[in-house]
Amino acid sequence: MLSSIFEPASIAVIGASNDESKWGGRILKNILSSFQGAVYPVNPKEAIIQGLSSYPSVLDIPGNVEMAIVIVPAQSVLSVAQECGEKGVKGLIVISAGFSETGNIGAELEKQLVSITRKYGMRMIGPNTLGIVNEPARLNASIIGQLPVPGSVPGSISFITQSGSLGLALAEWTIDTEIGLCKVISSGNKADVDDIDIIEYLNSDPSTGIIAMYVEGISRGRQFIESVRRIRKPIVAIKTGRSKRGAKAVFSHTGSIAGSDEVYSAAFRQAGVLRVDNIDDLFDAALAFSCQPLPEGNNVAIFSNGGGASIVAADECERQGIDIVDLTEETWEQIKKVVPEFASTSNPIDTAGTVSYKIYKDSIEALLKDPNVNAIIVIYVHTLMSNAIPPAEAVVEMIKKSKQEKSKKPIISCWMGGAGKEDGVGILKSGCIPNYPVPERAVKALAALIRHKEFLGTVKVEESRERRA
Amino acid sequence: MLSSIFEPASIAVIGASNDESKWGGRILKNILSSFQGAVYPVNPKEAIIQGLSSYPSVLDIPGNVEMAIVIVPAQSVLSVAQECGEKGVKGLIVISAGFSETGNIGAELEKQLVSITRKYGMRMIGPNTLGIVNEPARLNASIIGQLPVPGSVPGSISFITQSGSLGLALAEWTIDTEIGLCKVISSGNKADVDDIDIIEYLNSDPSTGIIAMYVEGISRGRQFIESVRRIRKPIVAIKTGRSKRGAKAVFSHTGSIAGSDEVYSAAFRQAGVLRVDNIDDLFDAALAFSCQPLPEGNNVAIFSNGGGASIVAADECERQGIDIVDLTEETWEQIKKVVPEFASTSNPIDTAGTVSYKIYKDSIEALLKDPNVNAIIVIYVHTLMSNAIPPAEAVVEMIKKSKQEKSKKPIISCWMGGAGKEDGVGILKSGCIPNYPVPERAVKALAALIRHKEFLGTVKVEESRERRA
Repeated sequence: MLSSIFEPASIAVIGASNDESKWGGRILKNILSSFQGAVYPVNPKEAIIQGLSSYPSVLDIPGNVEMAIVIVPAQSVLSVAQECGEKGVKGLIVISAGFSETGNIGAELEKQLVSITRKYGMRMIGPNTLGIVNEPARLNASIIGQLPVPGSVPGSISFITQSGSLGLALAEWTIDTEIGLCKVISSGNKADVDDIDIIEYLNSDPSTGIIAMYVEGISRGRQFIESVRRIRKPIVAIKTGRSKRGAKAVFSHTGSIAGSDEVYSAAFRQAGVLRVDNIDDLFDAALAFSCQPLPEGNNVAIFSNGGGASIVAADECERQGIDIVDLTEETWEQIKKVVPEFASTSNPIDTAGTVSYKIYKDSIEALLKDPNVNAIIVIYVHTLMSNAIPPAEAVVEMIKKSKQEKSKKPIISCWMGGAGKEDGVGILKSGCIPNYPVPERAVKALAALIRHKEFLGTVKVEESRERRA
Repeated sequence: MLSSIFEPASIAVIGASNDESKWGGRILKNILSSFQGAVYPVNPKEAIIQGLSSYPSVLDIPGNVEMAIVIVPAQSVLSVAQECGEKGVKGLIVISAGFSETGNIGAELEKQLVSITRKYGMRMIGPNTLGIVNEPARLNASIIGQLPVPGSVPGSISFITQSGSLGLALAEWTIDTEIGLCKVISSGNKADVDDIDIIEYLNSDPSTGIIAMYVEGISRGRQFIESVRRIRKPIVAIKTGRSKRGAKAVFSHTGSIAGSDEVYSAAFRQAGVLRVDNIDDLFDAALAFSCQPLPEGNNVAIFSNGGGASIVAADECERQGIDIVDLTEETWEQIKKVVPEFASTSNPIDTAGTVSYKIYKDSIEALLKDPNVNAIIVIYVHTLMSNAIPPAEAVVEMIKKSKQEKSKKPIISCWMGGAGKEDGVGILKSGCIPNYPVPERAVKALAALIRHKEFLGTVKVEESRERRA
């Protein structure tokens, strides 16, 4: 049913405006500049809005309206929703604020709003949302400033955010950094459509590969665990409001009860949701999921041209419970052929500064063959003495090889340093290798892949037990 | 005595080369393109190197040589050092590797090297170093690729790095991101000049304000604590090799014993060194120290246009032990005059999306006056609906005001979001406001300021006790 919201044939913009500095103007403009279906501005005070006929009410629109986006003052939302119901609208996005996040009176208004949507069988996102973006459908029904240019490859990360502005700023940031999002859903007060609904919709959505979430609070906790645990797509979440002050701010922000932090950690663990501690980690993990296979196990090899960077990575591996394994004799023989004599001869492997296409390619090739190794972290520390491109080309070549093998091994990279490094990063990006600016972030992203693989293993065992029982 | 290494009148480059892809060529080129004093290439196989007469030995140089930088194979280093001693050289930088980091034979060679330097009263950085940079003296005696362009304001952060390549990559990265370093010291095997020596030199150096360190291991532990505890400049350090594999790699990297991690944490705490856990935190903290006053206490106000971002910040404050305090009535009255009615009316303060110069300026002004508040975190979440410049201008205006007050309050900023945000970040940067891309990093940087202030308070109490005793 959420398809009426995400993939509507027609949209009414209720509270549309000619003034693009107002939300009703900005959202209409965003829809018109992205969406190919029918769009109807609704505003009784205007005849023409952004070049289109404006209707006094949704009931005056001649054609069908599948979805309506509502940007009117809170006190008018109920009557607008009532009219949408009468019109036969299937989905609502209520941008308007002034509901449960403001206290008791607003909460009562929100209850009445939900009873109207239920009466007519409409599904509603919001209120107090900044809208949604569905990149594959070329729909920007939000105040987010831009979509990736048409023709660019849409990403497979869908992002659910309870915070409007933070979420949209992050969404714009992902566009800026070319991570590429599939869908953005500002879930707002979640009066009707909540996280469970959205996650289930995204699970059935073929263009979504990974779900990233910014969460302040979750309702229907038991159902959340039950439904989400059945989902095999990776879900990465940052849950805020851990602190007392944060929890207080959460309530005035979206009306959620932040709840006990330990309870959330336990619930996420049971549901198979990977909880991360900060914003960087959220998209770092999502990025790794979007372009790398899951490792078969917990054993990693670290390959680097710089000792310091590989030590930093090794430390972070231990923190994350990742094992830096002993390599086989065959692997060593292969690697020793290309690295200098004075290079470090144990894992982490450190070429002591020397860099070439052949050194990186042959070494990674040996590591891909090593049965002890499940995943590879490749680090390149850039100085103006070396060229960032050849080792990047080697990594791209090797990930292609890995993806053809039966037992695929993820390769996570960290090209770090000053000017000149970007030439290599661009090659990695175009080869779909997630690159991170410091080793710790590369390791944490790999840890997310490993944890998700472990979760899948656990539920598989359970399922086979259930089948036998 | 280290001034002979950092501020020499004349330099011999022993092992100089015409081939800039070789270290002896690159380092000579770097020195020639930065340094204004006398430079003498030494290489018995060449007559002219990079346009200068080359000498067969340092003993053949007609003038005085204050410092020599040595880039010859390990087995030739002893005789070169001997000649430097005879010549009356005061300081050595030994780039050559192949000493204690390679095992027992190398360690023996290193001992002999030190006995030569001691015999002649020379001080030595290295061996196994990538050199040093002293920006105020315009000296780049390293393989680091560039100095900031002449005329740019030199930074006040000096960076000591035990890892060569990682350190120099980070140094180049700081240039790239315009953080600006004062000195970079690749300390290498620390056979003679060690961390204590360098820190004491930097403490007496008027152009160094903050010391940042990448450490794998420290020798002379007790003396380290005693000397460093007397220093009032902030020292921020990342100590790696915490993990088993990391510790093993540390040994083959620079010959250090990584030692028990808890011992290091305790030693750093006693010495007043702020230990950080990752590379981002190291420079984030250094940046905050370089341009903000220390707060008088632990009490912070968070001001933001986005609820989600301020909740993230509040959560991190709790993790870092920072208190988000109640504001005075006067402060609220002032803030309520400018923020919308529906804005969050407790700390963290959230304008619910509205942004203007006046809102940011008047609110921060009120917070600067509030006696409950010691520091302010200002967050701006950018969307294309708003302009990143006016709030940045307000912050810059207000930090000027704060710095004139008796009780200065630091302002740390986090401008986050997509394209367009940079316009504001540029203004913050030019106003010397440290900006961080996510709220967590802003909070951690402020935590470093608070911890250093607390350390200064502790040693002050001790000192006054000692005076009374």
